[in-house]
Amino acid sequence: MKLASTVDARLHAVLADRAVDLTDALALRPGAGGPLLAFLERGGTVAELAALDLDSLPSRPLAALRLAAPLARPGKIVGAPVNYLDHQAEMGEQRTIADYGVFLKASSSVIGPGERIRLPYRDVRTDHEGELAVVIGRTASRVPAGAALAHVFGYAPVLDITVRSGEDRSTRKSFDTFTPLGPWVTTADEVPDPGALGLRCWVDDELRQHASTADLIYDVAELVAYTSHVMTLHPGDVIATGTPAGVGPVAAGQRVAVEIDGLGRLEVGVTDDGAIAYADRPGHR
Amino acid sequence: MKLASTVDARLHAVLADRAVDLTDALALRPGAGGPLLAFLERGGTVAELAALDLDSLPSRPLAALRLAAPLARPGKIVGAPVNYLDHQAEMGEQRTIADYGVFLKASSSVIGPGERIRLPYRDVRTDHEGELAVVIGRTASRVPAGAALAHVFGYAPVLDITVRSGEDRSTRKSFDTFTPLGPWVTTADEVPDPGALGLRCWVDDELRQHASTADLIYDVAELVAYTSHVMTLHPGDVIATGTPAGVGPVAAGQRVAVEIDGLGRLEVGVTDDGAIAYADRPGHR
Repeated sequence: MKLASTVDARLHAVLADRAVDLTDALALRPGAGGPLLAFLERGGTVAELAALDLDSLPSRPLAALRLAAPLARPGKIVGAPVNYLDHQAEMGEQRTIADYGVFLKASSSVIGPGERIRLPYRDVRTDHEGELAVVIGRTASRVPAGAALAHVFGYAPVLDITVRSGEDRSTRKSFDTFTPLGPWVTTADEVPDPGALGLRCWVDDELRQHASTADLIYDVAELVAYTSHVMTLHPGDVIATGTPAGVGPVAAGQRVAVEIDGLGRLEVGVTDDGAIAYADRPGHR
Repeated sequence: MKLASTVDARLHAVLADRAVDLTDALALRPGAGGPLLAFLERGGTVAELAALDLDSLPSRPLAALRLAAPLARPGKIVGAPVNYLDHQAEMGEQRTIADYGVFLKASSSVIGPGERIRLPYRDVRTDHEGELAVVIGRTASRVPAGAALAHVFGYAPVLDITVRSGEDRSTRKSFDTFTPLGPWVTTADEVPDPGALGLRCWVDDELRQHASTADLIYDVAELVAYTSHVMTLHPGDVIATGTPAGVGPVAAGQRVAVEIDGLGRLEVGVTDDGAIAYADRPGHR
């Protein structure tokens, strides 16, 4: 099932060009994290969704929905630095995720389809990084790789927007709007092999990234297992699995899109409204 | 007011050796984040607390409470790397927070008074870092330093436990149990100057850290302002303000305590139950 959240905090199943509203049938009471997080935090499962009689529920044309990020404010957003060899090469990196471990992005950095990335600085490069996102469905603590996929609820395209400056990754990747997520979450039962998904990322009409998750250094199972050995993963937590080669700067007025086989296409804009000179940042010495 | 959460998810005002249960009077419905987060997320303020008639509410001896972390799972936990000059010197660091910006710790890493830090590795040093924690009370986005303290709800002692290995800070500081917080949150009205607080950190009976928040490089106001220019701070978010000199390893069986003037004393244990050899970590290549 493809689960989309809307700006009025309702949860929908996307069926081709129709959207079925699940909010009342699931008795969801969304908080700041949105309706899908409320579903996952109260123990919601794919089986519960499969038991719904979708024909009996209200539906609308998909095009009539105003989509929001499927998870507005996850409990945490984990990132995977240098998890493709071709990206390691383009960055001149000596190390990979096996050395760096994972990093964290602020949960406040999420935006949804059609929103705009806000560039923080006029004079520092800000890059797109198109990635596969994993959404946790069941609490995971120190799980082995062989059991890790059972803890995954679903998958979605994500952009890990990144400022190329000298700060800690958490700072460079956590500016508001720096985690576009969507257009929806596809449940894991519809993704037979998360290690064989084509991923494409465009800036305007230029294809910048074109890769397969087959080339991940830590594949999804190993990444979930590794992360769960550091920190307990809770339902609704998001893991961005890392970006392949082809990262590059985005500029005000451009459109950035990331599409993954079977998971849909996420598209957002870019603005420099409010951008400042790097030297004018608060706390600069 | 000093606000303590208990393991049964109730919120208390600590008055000398008594604890007044505020949970029902405030009509709190705690989620996974605990009762104080529920209060802050629904817009709770110091003024609302001050309007309570504490004499009319049920109270118990403080010693009868089983305290939990005042915030069990904050929306985010921000850390301040190298925010004291003497810690910069002891680490041989060339840079400070003005270069690094802030980092993030996993919200799943919080424990409360009397719980135990779990060492992840048998053969890698794990350090205590005693710090002042700031709890956000009002959403803060791009606030100037002069207005930043109005967004602070309160303060508490915190330990930023850290593995001294090569991974990203988020990994080294996010293991489960790595953010002991408490014993309670003291509201900002009782802390006239957060830049003049004595801080002491012990391992067993040895005083390891003894400093004043007067020596912070980014003081509380500047740190809140800086962070709010990177990421929107929401009610219940926690900022650990950085550690002074004196950090050092902790070992199984030890007690670690951090005490800050007027904010109480937080004490936790240390265990190596479940610790593994660093070379045996999942994902090791």
